[in-house]
Amino acid sequence: MKKNNLLKLSILLLLFSVGCREKILEKDQFPNVIIFFCDDLGYGDIGPFGHPTIHTPNLDKMAEEGQKWTNFYVAAPVCTPSRAGILTGRLPIRSGMCSENRRVLFPDSEGGLPPSEITIAKALKTKGYSTACIGKWHLGHLPQYSPNAHGFDYYFGIPYSNDMDREEGVKPYESCIDPKVEYFNVPLMRNSEIIERPANQETITKRYTKEAINFIDENKSKPFFLYLAHSMPHVPLFRSEDFANKSLRGVYGDVIEELDWSIGRILDKLEESGLDENTMVVFTSDNGPWLIFNEFGGSAGLLRGGKGGTFEGGMREPTVFWWPGKIEHRIVMDIGSTLDLLPTICSLTGIELDKDRIYDGFDLSPVLFSGEKSERNIIYYYRDTEVYAIRNGSFKAHFKTKDEYGSNETISHNPPLLYDLNVDPSEKYNISDKHPHIIQEMKVLLKEHQSTVVPVENQLEKFENKEEDYQSKSL
Amino acid sequence: MKKNNLLKLSILLLLFSVGCREKILEKDQFPNVIIFFCDDLGYGDIGPFGHPTIHTPNLDKMAEEGQKWTNFYVAAPVCTPSRAGILTGRLPIRSGMCSENRRVLFPDSEGGLPPSEITIAKALKTKGYSTACIGKWHLGHLPQYSPNAHGFDYYFGIPYSNDMDREEGVKPYESCIDPKVEYFNVPLMRNSEIIERPANQETITKRYTKEAINFIDENKSKPFFLYLAHSMPHVPLFRSEDFANKSLRGVYGDVIEELDWSIGRILDKLEESGLDENTMVVFTSDNGPWLIFNEFGGSAGLLRGGKGGTFEGGMREPTVFWWPGKIEHRIVMDIGSTLDLLPTICSLTGIELDKDRIYDGFDLSPVLFSGEKSERNIIYYYRDTEVYAIRNGSFKAHFKTKDEYGSNETISHNPPLLYDLNVDPSEKYNISDKHPHIIQEMKVLLKEHQSTVVPVENQLEKFENKEEDYQSKSL
Repeated sequence: MKKNNLLKLSILLLLFSVGCREKILEKDQFPNVIIFFCDDLGYGDIGPFGHPTIHTPNLDKMAEEGQKWTNFYVAAPVCTPSRAGILTGRLPIRSGMCSENRRVLFPDSEGGLPPSEITIAKALKTKGYSTACIGKWHLGHLPQYSPNAHGFDYYFGIPYSNDMDREEGVKPYESCIDPKVEYFNVPLMRNSEIIERPANQETITKRYTKEAINFIDENKSKPFFLYLAHSMPHVPLFRSEDFANKSLRGVYGDVIEELDWSIGRILDKLEESGLDENTMVVFTSDNGPWLIFNEFGGSAGLLRGGKGGTFEGGMREPTVFWWPGKIEHRIVMDIGSTLDLLPTICSLTGIELDKDRIYDGFDLSPVLFSGEKSERNIIYYYRDTEVYAIRNGSFKAHFKTKDEYGSNETISHNPPLLYDLNVDPSEKYNISDKHPHIIQEMKVLLKEHQSTVVPVENQLEKFENKEEDYQSKSL
Repeated sequence: MKKNNLLKLSILLLLFSVGCREKILEKDQFPNVIIFFCDDLGYGDIGPFGHPTIHTPNLDKMAEEGQKWTNFYVAAPVCTPSRAGILTGRLPIRSGMCSENRRVLFPDSEGGLPPSEITIAKALKTKGYSTACIGKWHLGHLPQYSPNAHGFDYYFGIPYSNDMDREEGVKPYESCIDPKVEYFNVPLMRNSEIIERPANQETITKRYTKEAINFIDENKSKPFFLYLAHSMPHVPLFRSEDFANKSLRGVYGDVIEELDWSIGRILDKLEESGLDENTMVVFTSDNGPWLIFNEFGGSAGLLRGGKGGTFEGGMREPTVFWWPGKIEHRIVMDIGSTLDLLPTICSLTGIELDKDRIYDGFDLSPVLFSGEKSERNIIYYYRDTEVYAIRNGSFKAHFKTKDEYGSNETISHNPPLLYDLNVDPSEKYNISDKHPHIIQEMKVLLKEHQSTVVPVENQLEKFENKEEDYQSKSL
């Protein structure tokens, strides 16, 4: 081939490849993002994760078309720190959103997610996204900590847990297993305005759904981010009349089936609007099932433990990613975390992560879109302000354990309990005596991690009434 | 309309409807049937039932296209009686195939499934089916009890469990968790001939697969019944080199992934041969996971208990029905049993059930093909010769419980333990005090059932060496 021709060909190829690249970027540059974040849903509570009597046809479809992730974690086993983690991509210890004495925010709390934190919503605003938080917030209910203060254009939901603000004389446990709407004086808010109090929790899932669909309708023409943090299936369990006694699994199943319905309506809306091929949808939950509520709590399936603790059931969540035409259907057994969502979304949208802070997440795009391995090998299992356990690859070392609820006794383990999670997902067979070198590695990891943690103001210990026995206010 | 015209129309409609009916009958009259029957597979051990680290893409596909049954039971929590149940459609107590002292047949056993019993194979022979049993038999190894004596044209497999016939000095437990082929002098048979001893278990799943494919190839032009009773994942666990260390779940996962591969090859064969739309395929197992083998046994997922016992984990199995174009995709939460397969297959093929005996199964065709409810409401949980528990609808009453292995103490419960299985699938919350009328109904059911049981010769207590401590021969 003559030099001249070679040059021409090279230029053509270059133009072509640039064209392709630009086309891909253009098409994918600003995808919509929806995060469905349930409250206290167990690893085993939906069809794709094996529940025998809860019908979840919409989640089944999501999993059959998208990616079921079987090793996907949250940042903490309770609500407030878990939510700080998903929205900031940073462990809650870095934002002061965890505490040993007050594990979550309460109605008398005066703290919240510091304004200096950058949420997914705030990051996406730099690219012109419309952003909405629908559902439970639980990252501070004073104005300076509200969703609107953290990058959300629109907020509709409850500011903290649905079992809080209990009326005088209403018993914490009993009111949760045999609830009435009026027991819980939780406000329902639209932006900074209280529009209903107590929130009518019977219709709340329906109304979240309607709000979500309206938000999608209003933002068809520009990129949007919808964070739909359902307040269910956190006790007290409520569902609309349409779902009363619909499930074989009792009221807990009714609630999950209504959530599944809600997800189905929103996915339908995407499909009808032709937005499905430009929207990444993630489904997961904030922590494991609240086992002390027996049949009113969920099931972690084959995993040990539940909400509040650092066994797998407390922090591994049933997770599905869905994006037709973009996310290829497969089951992913790599490790992922809600901490990875912010970096992944920033990578998708070309947003640079701020260099002034430590992020604890990884970009999952290569796993989601190209069948590559997850970069994440490590999970830190924080109980409040302390690392109780570390997963590194298949191995998990428990340095400390503690009952999820009901006992204040922390047990230190030296050597730590060691489990091979891939082989022994139920954490039944301690193999610490067989792997002294892994124990050693884990100890090094712990120290290395701890050295990255800088003390910050504890947001959960800021509250009005220091004298009050808040433990009696919520379980 | 004139009377004459009405008559003509009626005749036409009649002819048309008969024509349709005959066409349907003709097309469906003689479907092929394949039963995949695993050994000791747990409820939670495959993808569709939620295992986090075992890849089962072929079973996933079967479930995504077919019907996953989440409340499907076996006739007994151990091998021999469970197999008697699936093949005869009758509880093993009716054929003498259960016993308290010897829970299964051993190499020194002289009993077996009585020749008077009618297996699925024998029934299908009356319609000209080709029949093959490939895999583990375990219903009597003397000639009069062999697969060939029970309606199977062809047999290739092992006559009893793969952990039997242990060589002198080989320890029962240790040999199962750290096995070598030569520890187990189990014969591999082709019809009545021993073709290999000890059976090379490393290649056994591969060879079963090859035999199954050959059988399908040879019988493309006539209806066939293939009973493929894999000898895995019963300990000792063996897999071929191709699957060694392939799974994240260790050797147990390797074994399941090879079984899944095997199923995939056989379904591929059906599709390639154009037989898939005329073949009903059922996947299930004989009993729950053998938990005493720790990570070398499987997982019952969220169910309580395992092999040998009458909690759900011992007798509820991960079950999938597949028949493209005929079985509509859905998740079935109705109750089914391996006891229902014979009546269902007979219904499909127009075979009348013999009137001279009691059958314990129901025709599941209306559930499989027409979206109707299962006729089955009741499960009897036999431990050997006794009913330990009964499920009626959602409720299960345990009249007796006993450790699966390791203790001989039977605990009688009066009132029986009562669980609502739909709400509480893990059998955690005894609610017997809340439902005295259900307890009463359960007691009546027990009596009614017991009155149908006629004493027959115990086949499992017939053996050569009455003095021998056979308990030490197998766990």
